[in-house]
This record gives sequence, C-alpha cells and structure tokens, in this order.
Amino acid sequence: MPFKPNDNDQKAINTIRTLALDTVNKANSGHPGAPMGMAPVAHVLFSRFFQCNPQNPHWVNRDRFVLSNGHACALQYVLLHLLGYKVSIDDLKQFRQLESITPGHPELGVTEGIEVTTGPLGQGFANAIGLAIAQAHLGAVFNKDGYSLFDNYTYMFTGDGCLMEGVSAEAASLAGHLKLGNLIAIYDDNQISIDGSTAIAFTEDVGKRFEAYDWQVLHVENGNDDLKAISDAIEQAKAEKNKPTLIRLKTTIGYGSRDQGTHGVHGNPLKADDTVEIKKKFGFDPEQFFVVPEETKKIYSEIAQRGAEAEKKWQSQFNEYEQKFPEEAKDIKRRIDGKLPDGWEKALPEFKPSDDAVASRKLSEMILAKLSTVVPELVSGSADLTPSNLTRWKNAVDFQPKETGLGDYTGRYIRYGVREHGMGAIANGIAAYGGNLVIPAIGTFLNFVSYAAGAVRLAALSHLRVIWVATHDSIGLGEDGPTHQPIETVAHFRALPNCNVWRPADGNETSASYYVAMTSTHTPSILCLTRQNLPQLAGSSIEKASKGGYVLHEVENADVTLVATGSEVAIAVEAAELLEKQGLKARVSSLPCWEVFRAQSHEYKLSVLPDGAPIVSVEAYTTMGWAEWSHAHVGIDRFGSSGPAKKVYEFFNLTGPKVAERAQKSINYFKKLGHPVYSPVSHSINV
Amino acid sequence: MPFKPNDNDQKAINTIRTLALDTVNKANSGHPGAPMGMAPVAHVLFSRFFQCNPQNPHWVNRDRFVLSNGHACALQYVLLHLLGYKVSIDDLKQFRQLESITPGHPELGVTEGIEVTTGPLGQGFANAIGLAIAQAHLGAVFNKDGYSLFDNYTYMFTGDGCLMEGVSAEAASLAGHLKLGNLIAIYDDNQISIDGSTAIAFTEDVGKRFEAYDWQVLHVENGNDDLKAISDAIEQAKAEKNKPTLIRLKTTIGYGSRDQGTHGVHGNPLKADDTVEIKKKFGFDPEQFFVVPEETKKIYSEIAQRGAEAEKKWQSQFNEYEQKFPEEAKDIKRRIDGKLPDGWEKALPEFKPSDDAVASRKLSEMILAKLSTVVPELVSGSADLTPSNLTRWKNAVDFQPKETGLGDYTGRYIRYGVREHGMGAIANGIAAYGGNLVIPAIGTFLNFVSYAAGAVRLAALSHLRVIWVATHDSIGLGEDGPTHQPIETVAHFRALPNCNVWRPADGNETSASYYVAMTSTHTPSILCLTRQNLPQLAGSSIEKASKGGYVLHEVENADVTLVATGSEVAIAVEAAELLEKQGLKARVSSLPCWEVFRAQSHEYKLSVLPDGAPIVSVEAYTTMGWAEWSHAHVGIDRFGSSGPAKKVYEFFNLTGPKVAERAQKSINYFKKLGHPVYSPVSHSINV
Repeated sequence: MPFKPNDNDQKAINTIRTLALDTVNKANSGHPGAPMGMAPVAHVLFSRFFQCNPQNPHWVNRDRFVLSNGHACALQYVLLHLLGYKVSIDDLKQFRQLESITPGHPELGVTEGIEVTTGPLGQGFANAIGLAIAQAHLGAVFNKDGYSLFDNYTYMFTGDGCLMEGVSAEAASLAGHLKLGNLIAIYDDNQISIDGSTAIAFTEDVGKRFEAYDWQVLHVENGNDDLKAISDAIEQAKAEKNKPTLIRLKTTIGYGSRDQGTHGVHGNPLKADDTVEIKKKFGFDPEQFFVVPEETKKIYSEIAQRGAEAEKKWQSQFNEYEQKFPEEAKDIKRRIDGKLPDGWEKALPEFKPSDDAVASRKLSEMILAKLSTVVPELVSGSADLTPSNLTRWKNAVDFQPKETGLGDYTGRYIRYGVREHGMGAIANGIAAYGGNLVIPAIGTFLNFVSYAAGAVRLAALSHLRVIWVATHDSIGLGEDGPTHQPIETVAHFRALPNCNVWRPADGNETSASYYVAMTSTHTPSILCLTRQNLPQLAGSSIEKASKGGYVLHEVENADVTLVATGSEVAIAVEAAELLEKQGLKARVSSLPCWEVFRAQSHEYKLSVLPDGAPIVSVEAYTTMGWAEWSHAHVGIDRFGSSGPAKKVYEFFNLTGPKVAERAQKSINYFKKLGHPVYSPVSHSINV
Repeated sequence: MPFKPNDNDQKAINTIRTLALDTVNKANSGHPGAPMGMAPVAHVLFSRFFQCNPQNPHWVNRDRFVLSNGHACALQYVLLHLLGYKVSIDDLKQFRQLESITPGHPELGVTEGIEVTTGPLGQGFANAIGLAIAQAHLGAVFNKDGYSLFDNYTYMFTGDGCLMEGVSAEAASLAGHLKLGNLIAIYDDNQISIDGSTAIAFTEDVGKRFEAYDWQVLHVENGNDDLKAISDAIEQAKAEKNKPTLIRLKTTIGYGSRDQGTHGVHGNPLKADDTVEIKKKFGFDPEQFFVVPEETKKIYSEIAQRGAEAEKKWQSQFNEYEQKFPEEAKDIKRRIDGKLPDGWEKALPEFKPSDDAVASRKLSEMILAKLSTVVPELVSGSADLTPSNLTRWKNAVDFQPKETGLGDYTGRYIRYGVREHGMGAIANGIAAYGGNLVIPAIGTFLNFVSYAAGAVRLAALSHLRVIWVATHDSIGLGEDGPTHQPIETVAHFRALPNCNVWRPADGNETSASYYVAMTSTHTPSILCLTRQNLPQLAGSSIEKASKGGYVLHEVENADVTLVATGSEVAIAVEAAELLEKQGLKARVSSLPCWEVFRAQSHEYKLSVLPDGAPIVSVEAYTTMGWAEWSHAHVGIDRFGSSGPAKKVYEFFNLTGPKVAERAQKSINYFKKLGHPVYSPVSHSINV
C-alpha cells in the first residue's frame, strides 16, 4: 500500500517536536536540535513500519530501535510515551532529574522500551549490529519453513558524531562483511556537530565509505518534508535482504527554530520566545505545554494495536511450532526466561594438584569446548587472535554469510577482525537481545581490552552479561614486550562499577571464573588468562574460588598472610614454603575476583585477610588499589619489558625468594610497632 | 632519473629478508612474515627516496618512517642496522631479550631511529598523521620563499590489522580532510591476518574507502618483484601535494618460505629446514648467519651518505635563513633544543581567595589564551567539544587547508572531529616530531579520554608530552548523567605508569597543573577540569600545588586530616569548618596530582599526610586507590546519576555535613583503638 502522508501525519510530527521542546525546556537542559530534525523520520518509521507491543516490551521478535545519537533522547522518550510504554507525561516532565526514568541519555534497564544505553557516540551504532547478529543467528538456528520466529528488523538512528567515531567504523565494516540484511541505519545528515558545520572536520564521502563496506546506501534529500521519500527508502531498505542499509537523510537540525541549521540548537534549550514562535508556526498554543492532539493519540494507539496483534500472531505461530518442534520450542522458552540448561555447570572441569600445569588460556579453551556442547546460546569469537586466545572450540562453525563458503548464520564463532572496540560494543548488542538468547564470549589480549574501554563501561552500566576472554594477561606473555604487557589494565576495570575482573590461578579457579561469569546475568566479566603454564594448586576448588577470594593455605598463628591473584598465587605459595623453612608461618590467600570478594560478608572477608599479622600482596601489575587488602604490595609500578617470560619475572623481583624477603621485612616492621596489626578489611568497615 | 633495479637491489632485499629471519630465529620469537613480504618496498623506499642522516638521528627535517604494523620490527631493526644507526649485529642477536635495544615491538626512546612506539595496531597509522601535521604546520610557519626548512615526508607501513582498527579510520578521515600531501602510507595488502585469510572478516574495499576519505589511492599489483612499480607509485605519491596517498601493495607474507601466503608465517619463527631452503633459494649460505654482502653494505652506506649531505645542505640553507630571518631562526633553534620561551611561566595567572569562583575549564581557557601569546609551539584542539572544553583562544586560527577558507596550516587550533582515539594518537605523533617543535593540547570530556586509552598508554610508554584538557570531570557535569560521568577514569590513568593526572581545585592549582604539564617534557598529562564553578581557596598557591600535594589548611594537634582533589577540596574545607564548630580540629590537604606527589620526599609526603590522626579522603570517584593515602574514603562506588549537579552531589553524600559526619566516625574508631594512628604514607615506606 503506497504511503500517502496526510495532515494528521504532519500534526503528529509537530507534536513530537513540541513535546520534545517542552521536555527539554522543563528540564532547562538537553538537546532539542536532533529531535526536531528527526521527528519526520521517527514518525514515518514508527507509524508505517515498526513492530512492537508496548504492553509487552520484551516480546522477543519485536523490532529493535537504537538511538545511537543518544543525546536526542527527548525524541525517544516522547515516542515511548506516544506508543504507550510506561513513560508518562509526568516522566517527561522529570527529564534529566535525579533518579527519574528519563535520564540525560537513554539507559537500558531504567526505561521500558530502551534497548541499549547510548550517548557515548558510536556505541549504539555497534550495538545495533550486535542486535542484528543475534536476530540473524537465532533465525538461522530456530526458523523453519513456514515458521519465521526470529525475523525482526533492527532500526538505528545515527548522526555525524557517531559516524566520526572509530567504533562505528569497525562495526560497519564487519556488518557489511556479514551481510546483515535486517539492519537499517538512518543517518541524520544535518551537517552540524558541536563545533559547527561538518565542513570543519568531517568532509569525507560517507555514502561512498559505506558502499566500500558493502552496504546498500540510499539518499533522501529532503528529510524535513518528503515523508514519502523517507517511507520509500525504508521500504527499499527492508527489501534488500543481503546487505545492511544506510539511509542518508538530509535534515535540518532544530527544524522550526529561528536558529535551525546551526549548532546553536544542538545542546541547549531554545530561548523562550523562539519556542513560542515555533509552537505558533506548528499550530500549537504557546501557552499550553505537553499537548498531544487526539489525532496523534489515535495514530499511536493504532501502532500499539498493530504491534499487539503482531505479537498475538507470533504467539499462535509459536504454539504451532511448539507442536511440531517441541525441543526447539523448549529451548527458545528457556532462553527467553534467561535460564541456563539444567546441570550445565557439571561441564566445568575440576582439577587435582597432581594434574598437569596448564596455561589458563588453555584451561579456558577446555571449558569453552565443554560449554559449547551444553550451552547452545554461547557464541564465542575473537578480535583476530583465535590461535592465541584459544576461543574457538574444535569443529565450531563460523558465523558467516552462507555464500562465503566459510560458515553460516547458525555458526557460533564470530570472526570480529582486529576490531576490539567494535567487538565489545557488538557483543553488548548481542547480549542486549534479551534473556539468555545469546551469550557472547569475546577474545583479545588483556592489554587490548583497553581499546574497548568505552564498550566495557557501557556493558557494566547496562548490566549486560558479556564475557571477555582476555589472554596474555601480564608480563608472562614475555617477548612481545611492554606495548603488550598490561600494567594498569586490571586496576582500570576493577575501578569500574559492576564489572567482574577475574584472574584465576589454576584450573579450578578458571572453572569458577566461568561459573560466576555465566551466572552473573547482569554483569560483564573480564577473565584474565595466562599465556604461560600454571600449576594446579593444593587447596583450590571451584566452590571456594567462586567466592572471589579464599584461603588457599591456612596456618594457625601465622606470621604473615600472602595474598595474590592468577599466575602470582603459585609464587606466593613458593614464598610461603621458603618462609616456613626459615621458621615463619605464612598463610596464602587467593583473590581471583575483588568485586565478588567484596560482596561477601565482613566476617568471611576477615577470615581470608585477618587481623593479627601483616598482609603482603603479589601481583604482576601496578600496586595501585592493593592497599584495600594488604599492607605491603609486590608489583610492577612501571612498564614491563620484552624478554622471555621467566627472565622478565626475575627482573621484576616476582619470585618466591624475593616475595619471602619482602614478607620478612613486613613482619619485622610490625613487630617493632609493638601493637596489634589490623587487616585493611577490619579497618575499612570501621572507619 | 628512471629507476632500473639491478641484481644488487635484489641481493639487498634478500639480505633484509635473511637478516630478519636470523634475528627472529635467534630470539626463537617474533614475526618473520611481514619483514619478508615487505623487504622489497622497504628497500626501494630507503634506497631511492628516504632522507635521513643516521649520524644525526635528530636532524629536524629528516623524513619520518613509521612501522604501524610494529610486529614487523625485525624489518625495522635490520634497516636501522644497514643504514648505520646504532643498531649492531649484536643488537639484532639480542632481539626480544631483556632490556635490549631491540625489544619485541619498536619503542621510541629505546632505539635510535625509531620515531614512534608501535605494535598496538592502528596507533602508528595515526601517529604518522600527527607527524605529517607537525611538518605541515612548521612548514607553514617557518618556510619562506627559497627556504624550505620543513618539508620532510612521512612514510608509513601499515597492514590489514591496522586498517581494521577504528583509530586508523578516524585518523585517515581527518588526514583526508586536512589534505596532508606529504603523508604516504604503504599498505601491505597480503590478505593474511592472525586468524587466516582476510576473507573471513575484512572484505571491504579498502581503496574505495580511502578514496571516500579523499586520499589518493595507488595500486601495485606485484609488490614482491615489481620494484619499478613500487618506485613509480612512491614517486607519484610524492608528486601529489594536495592529498595523502595510500599505496595498496599486494605482497606475499613470508615470501620465500614454503608456507608463504599463510598465517603460519605471521607470528612464529620458521622451521629450521624451511630457513635453510629459503637461504639457499636467495643465494645465501644456510650455515652462515647475520650476513651482509658487501654490495648491500655499499648501497646502504650510500644512502647514509646521501642523507648526511642532505642535512649539510639543509644546515647551510638554515644558516642563510638565520641571516635573513633571525627571529624565526632563533625560535626554531629554541624549539629544537626543547626549551620553552624565557619567562613563559609568568603568563600563568595567580588568584586570591577573594577572586570570583570560576569553573576550572574556564580557568584552563584563560591559561591557554595567555600561553597562546607566549608559547608559539602550543597547538590546541578538541574532539568536537570546543564550546564545552573551552580549548580555543579568541582569534585562534584553525589548522585547515587554505582552500577551505576556514584557516590555514599556520593555524594552531585543530578540529579533530568526534574522534578521541584518533586525536590522542595523532597528538602523540605531533609530540613525537621532536623537541618543543609542537606541543599538543587536546580536549574532550574526561569520560571520553577512555575511548583513547590505547593512545594515552602509548604517550606514557613513549614519554611524550601530550596535554589532555579533560573537562566535565565528574558528576558535577550534572544532567548528562552516568553515561558521561567518570567514576573509574581517574583511577585508570593513575594506575598507568608515567602519566600525570591532575585534578586542580581552584585557579592557582589549575595554573600549577599547566606549569607541571608544560615542563614535564617526557610525560603526558591529563588535566581533569570542572564544568561547575570552584571557589578560590585560602592557602593554595602555584608553588605548593606544583608538588602534587600540600597542606591547604594546617592545625596543630589535629583530630583528623581531610584530603581531597579538585572540586571536592572546597567540600573538605566546608567539612573542616563544621568540625571546628564541634570543637574538632581538622587539617585539610589537597592532592591535585598523585604521581607528582609520590615523587616528593618521604618527609614531605608525611608532612602533608602525617601520623597521629585519621585521614579521610573526599573525591567524587571510585574510592579504589585511596587506601594508599587515607584511612576512610568518601566517594562513589557505583555509576553516577542524571540531574542538576548540586542535587547529584547531595544524592551521593558529597557535602560538607556528610563528610564531617564521616570524619567524626573515623576519629571515634581510632580513639577506641587506643594506640597511635599511622599515616598510610608512614606504613608504605616501612613495609
């Protein structure tokens, strides 16, 4: 049915504009420009195409909408309100107010209908690609002839800012390679960014660039008024099933304002008299605020109605499917409910001290191989370091377009290319598809997780279960040298709220790290894994390590507690043995995950790091942060060095004898003080 | 003179290959593939085009060479050896050995002739653009009719890995916009990355993408053998003065090996028998190692000779220039010597407590304006946040191609676009041009410095003076909310070695932060600046703050020390006043830069944070790390919140009364213990 826009469409568009204006004005803070410029495309998209059921925001096959230029969120909140999501006019009035559901940028988990957290530019762009990958994968796995359970579209709005960012470039290149036909990006080509005209810094031919990525590129020259052209472009985008589409839409930022088309309307509320004139121009009463005309209400309630019916139809399709394919249907339901398969954790290997020394990246490989058979939603991948990260299980199928001959969309191994930031943000999108539908595990060297810092931060803020397989986790990588040896990395991510950083010391701890990562449904995890072999430790267990910290080696009336993580735990054990030979009693505690350990009871923490004797930490990183747990810290407060791993460890005094020496010094110091030694844990709760 | 390659060229190429092989084999670690594939282009470039004087590696107008695919550094070390830099055969034999001058990836400062630190992919690509910007700028400022003092080329080798990274995409887009004609990138299109064929993840049309960026793109189809085509392409690249050039060079990775053209030759030494066969094939004795034929020595000594003569010619040109343009010549010499103009620091404003409260971003703007007039090498810029970062002084000229009508290359303000990572890596390249030739200051929100973590890390490792103007440094930015409010950011960069993180509390401290940043010639600085106003504090001074930490408010027999940074220092002062009303004596210390403070004497540090009373910290970030300085920590161990700044501060208990309460609690706890209170500083030196 050809689209004939009418007066009511125009009225709805102007309603979106004035509502967004009122929202920003009430807050006296926010971004009016993009909502006013993108109101037409938003209206056309939602009124003509978008499938969602505001009564059930979690319907699994809903279309996904991503506002990558998240500063335009007044637009998104207004749309959610009009569509009937739980965003009231009062919520719009609370825009950007403390702990409201309409914060300054869209946040997943805070507002119903928000699919991903955006604002940091470029992230939403890559998230959308993750959402599209999840859809393509689930479609390939579950759809059957006549049953298209997973076929939703992912629509994304994006602006100049997002497209200047490298993270979007990385993701776009991969999306083109992957031929994600259900992905439609609408580029608000308003030629304005904060500094002014894009002529000052962004003069590349964006369309040509996306063609180079093998996207379909469509152009709408008048995105302000030509609703039919917008509709036609979206139609054409939907029809192209073999490529993602970029619709380059020329709009005027702040359309209607006397300053339209300038950066003056980007990030500040418009002047009062400008607002009055705009409302008059659009046929609204400037004395009234937050007005939604009946005609607009009607259009949007019809959209909601259409969505509710679509879900109903989907549900009856699913019921039939369930009859014919009970196993698959059961799996879909389980995934939607966010439950892991019963007994999955039995696949995690346990180790005895007599077992071989193994690198924790290799232990991770063993675990991924086991999990791949029992957790079908686990989708692994690497940023072009597969043979180093060991993220790919044997016989894994690559997630690739079938025509490449390299795999197909049922594949559970994603070749991300050398694109760490893109990978991280795409994985966020995959995880954000919902429930347990897909659980992404992604590999790179620990040092290069920093390239993706922006994405890791948003995984944490968005409560997304993304599992980073971060190998080559220290100077233990050896010859590649200081450019590749993390020093600050772990401190960085430990300082990030809601991010579990694991540094397992042996096989049992590696299993524990996967156990907690898989079951931490609202937290990303970074598993820091060694290149070098690690012995299986006496005293470790999956259960104990799952607490984030535990006593590996207990002694009564200890003279010192040594506490370490990962590859340095074995060094601490060696130091303890040396101290014992000198008649000193040393306990050893392992602290594989600070965040999980912090969440334990005070009594438990104090039992691991007790009062009464000095505590000395050992970790091949910066010592910054360790004063939370220990009195003395053996670490590396400079960059690393290129050389064979063992020599580099010796160079930095990370050996049993040197740690024993340091422990001796600490014991002597506290003896001289002549009064009780308090654990930092003990202090921390009291002060 | 047309290029006619002869047998000696081929012999030299095979010498490079066998030397690189021997180097990697001796280390039993490293990357043989790219050196063998790129030996032909390396030889053609250096023998035919490259201008450098190995006797004076710091000659200012030398051509710059950047190996962006830094893992191929055996190639670069071999070239440096052949050219006569201080890299001996013995050094090649020490490849990847502890503290050698031939580490696993090239490091600026470690090896003469290495211009930038590479290895982390994409960084070198962007560094090269910074080097080219510095050349273009200095040429525009200093060259005169008949005197072309700054006209060197920047040559960069890059591979598939670099070109998949977003940081290179960001930088490439800007380089095209800036029309950097003296920049020549040679893309080793060997179609292999670690995971295998680029067909699995990198199928975009790279040439077309670079055309979209407005680069000249040239193609050499046989980079293994067609030396003339390589030479012609470089010639053509040099001739295009209005665009950067990408030469897409098809090569075979590991050329000569039986596994050539596969990822098997990428990152591991070749098998012994393979090496034997290769040497035989190339006419070398497989029983001999590290062999340089006389003919090759001759070619390379001629290159060095040519370079020495070029410098001589340049020097005599400079001498003439000095006669005619004594002021400019003096300035060039000063900059080459790395000296700031005499008395420059007098431009730093001082403040009295009675002066107005001002946001530190605004103080930074005042300082940049003053410095712009006395430090001509200061080149500022922003990642499209100029009106927020306030990095642009009045009447600044933009660094732009003249034909844009927006500025010219003499301009000292760079519009980086929304490209934080590219900006950081470009600034590293600008700083790496040498001495004080150009000092880059770059602006973004503190939270988005994280996008550039990879570049900040390399600035620190490479000892580059890059000044980050990082505004909107906390929850004090208010309504933009948790997506924009840093929590972990400062802890991250504090944990990074050789990186000064400043958080000034008022005008004097802001001046101090600039003073130390400008004079820390081998350290990057991140200046964390507020959006909100800060009062001018009683007790602050430039001199005191330049120590990184000092006593703002001293009291004898104090009950507590409050220590804070930035905007929270005024809160600590308020808390101290409240405590005094309750009869408790509170000292206040300010710690604007931990790294600089750490470098002070133990006695000094102890005077700032003394024994005898509890120390309570106040900072609107994660408390992680503070246990190094304080017993109790008031901070934010979760993500922030969207709302007006004042309300957000109250929400997080960051107010005078709440801090006073916390101090009271600490005082009571330590009183109960009944024995001396030790400062963490006191402990730290003893344990």
